[in-house]
Amino acid sequence: MSASVEAGTLALVAGAGRLPELVARSLERTGRPFRVLAVRGFTERAMRARASATVDLLDIPGTLRILKEWAPSGVVPAGGVARPSPAALLNAAHAMRNRDILRHMAGGDDRLLRAVIGLLEDEGHRVVGVHEVAPDLLGRRGQMGRHVPSEMAQVSIGTGQDMLNALAPYDVGQAAVVAAQRVLAVEGPEGTDRMLARARAIARKPFGYGSAPKGTILVKLPKQGQDLRIDLPAIGPRTIRNAAAAGCVGVALGAGHTLVIDEAQTVAEADRQGLFLIGLDVAP
Amino acid sequence: MSASVEAGTLALVAGAGRLPELVARSLERTGRPFRVLAVRGFTERAMRARASATVDLLDIPGTLRILKEWAPSGVVPAGGVARPSPAALLNAAHAMRNRDILRHMAGGDDRLLRAVIGLLEDEGHRVVGVHEVAPDLLGRRGQMGRHVPSEMAQVSIGTGQDMLNALAPYDVGQAAVVAAQRVLAVEGPEGTDRMLARARAIARKPFGYGSAPKGTILVKLPKQGQDLRIDLPAIGPRTIRNAAAAGCVGVALGAGHTLVIDEAQTVAEADRQGLFLIGLDVAP
Repeated sequence: MSASVEAGTLALVAGAGRLPELVARSLERTGRPFRVLAVRGFTERAMRARASATVDLLDIPGTLRILKEWAPSGVVPAGGVARPSPAALLNAAHAMRNRDILRHMAGGDDRLLRAVIGLLEDEGHRVVGVHEVAPDLLGRRGQMGRHVPSEMAQVSIGTGQDMLNALAPYDVGQAAVVAAQRVLAVEGPEGTDRMLARARAIARKPFGYGSAPKGTILVKLPKQGQDLRIDLPAIGPRTIRNAAAAGCVGVALGAGHTLVIDEAQTVAEADRQGLFLIGLDVAP
Repeated sequence: MSASVEAGTLALVAGAGRLPELVARSLERTGRPFRVLAVRGFTERAMRARASATVDLLDIPGTLRILKEWAPSGVVPAGGVARPSPAALLNAAHAMRNRDILRHMAGGDDRLLRAVIGLLEDEGHRVVGVHEVAPDLLGRRGQMGRHVPSEMAQVSIGTGQDMLNALAPYDVGQAAVVAAQRVLAVEGPEGTDRMLARARAIARKPFGYGSAPKGTILVKLPKQGQDLRIDLPAIGPRTIRNAAAAGCVGVALGAGHTLVIDEAQTVAEADRQGLFLIGLDVAP
């Protein structure tokens, strides 16, 4: 984290899901002051109650006005927002008298957020990631939980790391299901849960003897150069359950680069299901 | 093709599907003599009628006996066989008084065929691939059909080639769905048709605006060092239909390394659906 955001009040822009609340609690634990900006239709109830202001997702002028007034030392986007409809984007672009934004927003999955971050930075704001202001929410290095990877699972971990590194230059593959030298699934835009469902189906096929190959694991790593402010890999108890259902014997994640939602529950679930949970060193 | 299999009678081991018949017709066109060995429960009717002998999938001693008698200049496996049940494998291993084979057969998807090829080679047979004896069944270099890749589709082709080459050292990724720099899906053991179904579902998601990104294509290449006798990439009219349904504007395949089942029909389907079909140079 750069020096200028190490102190001062943060603006927590609260999208959907539990993450904004987890970040708020983490900031409270460390005594860091913050204000909550809610996004209408996305922020969950617990955070809405704590919001100092509420904006519409595409009301960018309104959002910039509020943030100018607050003058936070950093703006922290947390939690998802669904992609607005083309019509809503068109209206927003029209309202801003700026058709360029439409072009950016109509692009890839991350481009909407990237465009918004760009706008905020143009206005002089520092946009900082959850991983920077709430590092206690991230998976730690080494063994979490009580299960240990077998020798075969260690081979799987190596294969997964190498293969995901080889995929680093391409816009794909933040996670994979691997068994020793075999790669059973590479994650695309469908996300980790759907990839695990696919691995489960593959293990069930006649060719799979009705079970996953020995040493099957889930590996989840950030891409090199990935902007963690926009796309922070995350796992939680559900990921562990889905990995277990796909026949995985463990989960390996990028230490310090992966959000572990409800760490205590996630580790407890891994212990209960017999899965190891391990944090790997990630190339900086 | 090595000199010793350029002449003499071949043994065509006919598995399931239309491929054995296509190979037989190709051999007839070139005047190459061959005999057909049918596999009980797998060989289709048209080929069963032409079989000189029939064996059970796991009757390896019987198969070796027949091939010893035939003394073919090459053994050509063609068409799929489903993986036998563990019990059937156990019986076969027992019958052969050889538990080693069980170990090999219980491994990866290709290991059963690899083990059988190894056994045949131990007995002095040459096992040759369909691509060697019937090269007219393979996709050609350059444009097939009447549609031409757009500039954006050419970017997609480049991304797909580079990414699949990066994956070459790993046991995964013989095909991918790519749109410009984005990789929408990487094929795992589920096969091309299921991967295309996934790409179709991704394009339909709310984030996809209900259609595939511009320049989406299917790229299908052999892996470097892939044993084409065991695993020859294949496309056909159904692949074209599934690619079209996934929003692809074209299909790029490894020239001379990909079986095009019913080439005339495949090209006609691509023409009708508005898809280009192009054969890429493959690193030797």
